[in-house]
Amino acid sequence: MTALGIGLIGTGFMGKTHALAFRSVRAVMGDVPEVRLECLCDTPADKAARFAAQFGFVRATADWREIVADPAIDIVSITTPNNLHAEMAIAALQAGKHVWCEKPMALTLADAERMEAAARAAGRITLVGYNYLHNPAILHAKRLVGAGRIGRVVHVRGWVDEDYQADPDLPWTWRARLADAGLGALGDLGCHLVSLVLALAGPIESLIADTQIVHADRPLADGSGRAAVENEDTATAILRFANGAQGSISASRSAWGRKNRLDVEVHGTKGMIAFAQERMNELQLYVNEGPKAEQGFRTILTGPEHAPYGRFVPAPGHQLGFLDLKTIEAAELLRAIAGGRVAHPGFAHALGIERVIHAIAQSGAEGGRRVTLG
Amino acid sequence: MTALGIGLIGTGFMGKTHALAFRSVRAVMGDVPEVRLECLCDTPADKAARFAAQFGFVRATADWREIVADPAIDIVSITTPNNLHAEMAIAALQAGKHVWCEKPMALTLADAERMEAAARAAGRITLVGYNYLHNPAILHAKRLVGAGRIGRVVHVRGWVDEDYQADPDLPWTWRARLADAGLGALGDLGCHLVSLVLALAGPIESLIADTQIVHADRPLADGSGRAAVENEDTATAILRFANGAQGSISASRSAWGRKNRLDVEVHGTKGMIAFAQERMNELQLYVNEGPKAEQGFRTILTGPEHAPYGRFVPAPGHQLGFLDLKTIEAAELLRAIAGGRVAHPGFAHALGIERVIHAIAQSGAEGGRRVTLG
Amino acid sequence: MTALGIGLIGTGFMGKTHALAFRSVRAVMGDVPEVRLECLCDTPADKAARFAAQFGFVRATADWREIVADPAIDIVSITTPNNLHAEMAIAALQAGKHVWCEKPMALTLADAERMEAAARAAGRITLVGYNYLHNPAILHAKRLVGAGRIGRVVHVRGWVDEDYQADPDLPWTWRARLADAGLGALGDLGCHLVSLVLALAGPIESLIADTQIVHADRPLADGSGRAAVENEDTATAILRFANGAQGSISASRSAWGRKNRLDVEVHGTKGMIAFAQERMNELQLYVNEGPKAEQGFRTILTGPEHAPYGRFVPAPGHQLGFLDLKTIEAAELLRAIAGGRVAHPGFAHALGIERVIHAIAQSGAEGGRRVTLG
Amino acid sequence: MTALGIGLIGTGFMGKTHALAFRSVRAVMGDVPEVRLECLCDTPADKAARFAAQFGFVRATADWREIVADPAIDIVSITTPNNLHAEMAIAALQAGKHVWCEKPMALTLADAERMEAAARAAGRITLVGYNYLHNPAILHAKRLVGAGRIGRVVHVRGWVDEDYQADPDLPWTWRARLADAGLGALGDLGCHLVSLVLALAGPIESLIADTQIVHADRPLADGSGRAAVENEDTATAILRFANGAQGSISASRSAWGRKNRLDVEVHGTKGMIAFAQERMNELQLYVNEGPKAEQGFRTILTGPEHAPYGRFVPAPGHQLGFLDLKTIEAAELLRAIAGGRVAHPGFAHALGIERVIHAIAQSGAEGGRRVTLG
Repeated sequence: MTALGIGLIGTGFMGKTHALAFRSVRAVMGDVPEVRLECLCDTPADKAARFAAQFGFVRATADWREIVADPAIDIVSITTPNNLHAEMAIAALQAGKHVWCEKPMALTLADAERMEAAARAAGRITLVGYNYLHNPAILHAKRLVGAGRIGRVVHVRGWVDEDYQADPDLPWTWRARLADAGLGALGDLGCHLVSLVLALAGPIESLIADTQIVHADRPLADGSGRAAVENEDTATAILRFANGAQGSISASRSAWGRKNRLDVEVHGTKGMIAFAQERMNELQLYVNEGPKAEQGFRTILTGPEHAPYGRFVPAPGHQLGFLDLKTIEAAELLRAIAGGRVAHPGFAHALGIERVIHAIAQSGAEGGRRVTLG
Repeated sequence: MTALGIGLIGTGFMGKTHALAFRSVRAVMGDVPEVRLECLCDTPADKAARFAAQFGFVRATADWREIVADPAIDIVSITTPNNLHAEMAIAALQAGKHVWCEKPMALTLADAERMEAAARAAGRITLVGYNYLHNPAILHAKRLVGAGRIGRVVHVRGWVDEDYQADPDLPWTWRARLADAGLGALGDLGCHLVSLVLALAGPIESLIADTQIVHADRPLADGSGRAAVENEDTATAILRFANGAQGSISASRSAWGRKNRLDVEVHGTKGMIAFAQERMNELQLYVNEGPKAEQGFRTILTGPEHAPYGRFVPAPGHQLGFLDLKTIEAAELLRAIAGGRVAHPGFAHALGIERVIHAIAQSGAEGGRRVTLG
Repeated sequence: MTALGIGLIGTGFMGKTHALAFRSVRAVMGDVPEVRLECLCDTPADKAARFAAQFGFVRATADWREIVADPAIDIVSITTPNNLHAEMAIAALQAGKHVWCEKPMALTLADAERMEAAARAAGRITLVGYNYLHNPAILHAKRLVGAGRIGRVVHVRGWVDEDYQADPDLPWTWRARLADAGLGALGDLGCHLVSLVLALAGPIESLIADTQIVHADRPLADGSGRAAVENEDTATAILRFANGAQGSISASRSAWGRKNRLDVEVHGTKGMIAFAQERMNELQLYVNEGPKAEQGFRTILTGPEHAPYGRFVPAPGHQLGFLDLKTIEAAELLRAIAGGRVAHPGFAHALGIERVIHAIAQSGAEGGRRVTLG
Repeated sequence: MTALGIGLIGTGFMGKTHALAFRSVRAVMGDVPEVRLECLCDTPADKAARFAAQFGFVRATADWREIVADPAIDIVSITTPNNLHAEMAIAALQAGKHVWCEKPMALTLADAERMEAAARAAGRITLVGYNYLHNPAILHAKRLVGAGRIGRVVHVRGWVDEDYQADPDLPWTWRARLADAGLGALGDLGCHLVSLVLALAGPIESLIADTQIVHADRPLADGSGRAAVENEDTATAILRFANGAQGSISASRSAWGRKNRLDVEVHGTKGMIAFAQERMNELQLYVNEGPKAEQGFRTILTGPEHAPYGRFVPAPGHQLGFLDLKTIEAAELLRAIAGGRVAHPGFAHALGIERVIHAIAQSGAEGGRRVTLG
């Protein structure tokens, strides 16, 4: 296979992570296709050019449609603001590109559905940036659950919190407007938590929920007054899973002190697994076995026993970081392309995540009415 | 004031803690009335006598009505199974005794209401055994919240978990029968969590909830078959508080590895407080102040700065234990009696806790319907 | 056996803990002799009387020799400043009393040796207040080590730190004068650490050490100038054990933020045990067994499986506190008296602890010269 | 500046980390010179070729002297076994290359001194792979110490532990032979700890130490018998610093459960800093300020406030990993080359680290005699 050409749209935080992942993935993994950093897109053009030089792309453009049209490009990475995802992804798919799109898929469920339909129609590989799913600790948790190590899953809990909207004096931004940002904490954070919960406990059947705007309005940056916050600062749901388990999840973007909290705990009939992203190289495991006097939660430090950790570092306890998760994600994409298989989580799976967060928003809007998922 | 005569009904775990608290409270605190361990009640009589000798009571009886009728007794401690609380407490109150009753108040809300009415009618001091409220760490958290240290409270979360019903092979007991035990995890554990949440965020206005029976039936101990589990193993609720805050709480008696987990976190507009009972001598505090590069959760080890810790140990970090909480609780009772003031939490306050757990059960039974609290 | 009469000398922190332990021990344990709080001694007399009332002693005195001479007293508890221990303990032993003495035994090794000789001559039961040895977590660690659970012990490390002398502006006190206080951090803190290390790894054969005065002088409280600090703020030693293991220990009374840190870790050929007193209800255990992918340190929460925890609370994870350790210690004393056996750690064992801390001081004074223990 | 040509010798763990660092550093940092992965060396030739393809090098060779002689190469990265460092580094320096060499510098102090002399003579930039020094948490700790945030440093402690030699049944390897491996735990692990201690407390004046071979011999892999372990499994030293502080450090390669433990704590007159590499994105800080009731160790999660974290991820709490430390290290090298300044830690500084670990070995060999450093 000749090297796969990469077109990357966006040079912000996520754009950088995609660029770095593509730069590292083959050196780390060995057994993935080669890539060629073909074209980087941002506006204005000089910004695109500057970042192309920094990231090591061959070319730069200010017009994303050039990337979509470019025959030298096989994969389009979309890391733009969420309201642009749908148009770009659909165009790329229709042009026959594979698409790696950041989460959430879109502002509205309808857009996400259109994206999924386009992926199905195009038969191309898609991947949505739920990077935490690729953490070796989470992959190991999935294996443990799958192997019945904690018995039947009966209950799940999770929290995802940051504090970037905790300060009441923070100026109003587009993030607070429904039309621009769509969902609030659910779209930014909640969807990550849902991705973990689905991975560890399977599909959700129904839920009840509540949402909350913590700061009703915020000062305008220009001092001209205040503007309303239109989307949720927190969201909480109580879940019923298809397998009979129950659980609850909660998201907040106004939780002081939490920087990237993403905690999940899985209660089984034989044991418990707990994970906290702020200590992403640790997995907590309790199993009801051996002498009672020696039972306790084990802090498992990830290492070569937890694939693909060993591709990065052959010694346990040395720690992977956030960027390494994106490298694993890129490998998933490249291997799926090379192997002609579905990448996980692709648009079809990610649409399921979108359905959950929109169901939470809907239940919240309707006072906690039970919402059933397809 | 002459020494207050104590009558204690029950010699189990809680009975022992009451006896120990009464034995220690004056030596620890200094400024509380003297007590006299007058009479201990349990059945059969020889068991009562044996424990009276161990606990240092003057006399023993197998008839709790003797205690209620005894003019030498000023305070009746009720630590019997929950289905007996109402009758005993009401009789004691009507006989003019002060009453210290373990939680939950009763099996049914109606019984709890009768108890509260009796307390009001009698004008005696009542106290319900929500021991965790008396933890110096929690008292400090209340002071911090009250002083606005974390700003306005906007969100609250809590979990209370144990694993005493986690094993699917555990034999069926009376704990699983509604008629004997009333609520399941809510009555055993959830009420403690509610007590903390009310203390830190104030009254709850409405809620939606779900409950779950994890193990539908259990083997009978005599091997003759299986019997149904009638009350909830887990319960989860999403709360709206009177002050506009939201939050969620969850209780499980089937959570492997959790031995006495009782966690609560209070999100404010300026900071966050978090507490975990399994590390009961620590309080986590984050405040948005000082250089950003130095912000982080502080692990405050309780010490003499956190009254009444210093009455036990004059040096920080030396740790109080569970039994010490009961000693603080006993001091609250004795001081309320000496001062002619209400003890906290008395029957009136504890009834509010009962209302919440029964509202959770009701919402759960009705598929998550919103239940409004008085 | 008729109730044992208790005479307690001292009403400070430790005096209070002895009083409370004696008040609780039979109610907690059941199977220990009854005690009678006979006489409390402190100066002046009204202070003794006030605390006798608070602690529940029958009588009070300002003359400790009255206690030693009193035929109604069987056990003398010595909780006075360390420079008084030797005279009181020897007098009590010579009068035929059992003696419970706080640590360290004495200011000088010579005094400690005289105390041990007196105990041997008197044939009475002695106990020295190394309360941390009685922690169920430590008792369990000893059992695990003894049973070979972590293989052969090959290395040991420990730290004991507080911050009561960390502030450079703290006024000078008698604690800083050799003649009054004897050793510094070694006498206050180091001896506790040595007690744990000996319990878990056996006798020490030789050591090299260094000591440090962090704050050379301190302001006099009356503002009249500054006075020299004569004893060590920190002490560190590298140990060789009789069994071939090595290890190191370090003590500081000038360690900001450490309130009652007493950490020890035991390295074995099959596993590791680690303990931290500031989380005294937890024991960390790692064993090289089972799948590598599931290995990790287990946080064992103490519970009824770890005797005598269950005597206090029948449920795991509920936490014992510092005072409970003194209750276990009192039970050890009473059982030894009842059973006519040596109490642990008695004067003979505690003398071994004294030898180690004085050897550390000596090596430190001589620039780190290797000092061999008997 | 035209792109700097890289020649990398070695394709093991460290070789891979260098390759990845060079691939990422400009994309991450932006403001460092471009590099060109010119030639990769390993034996045999096909292995070199295979890894050159994986890592993205232009060419491969099995002869390291080709790299040294290649005019297209500006920087030589040496990641071979330690006994080869000296010859390669000296040759590269003499050929006018800049050198990035993994730690420790060499097997013997004499070799390290020759390397340092060669660097001085050549006037080229050198850097030794003490990657943990580049952790933003450690850089921040240095800034805090430098700014007097914890007052005067008075005491330092550290531990570095792994368990790769803990299993008594592990076969004998070259690691156990002095002639091949030089020092044991000191060379592998201890030098990292020394690098941190020097960074935080300055130069060491003298020390006393002990070393230990835990497993005297090990089975030969071919089953033909057992061979002696010649170098230390553990090493411990008590340090005196030039600034009057004292401290202690200990290293073990036989510490079950420790995977990459590298802990250091710095005691100051106003506060304490503590760090643990197994939680490398956290820094513990205690300062004696503000209300006593709110004092506690703060867990600072690294973020953009802690340069150069923000170059990787603009959001706090997202975690850097081990590989990111190598990227920061590479940036240090490239910036030093671009700026014509010394890189830190270069050969001169690293020689100081070597002197310390060899002094520890020497003191250990001589029964703990005090060894003075230059």
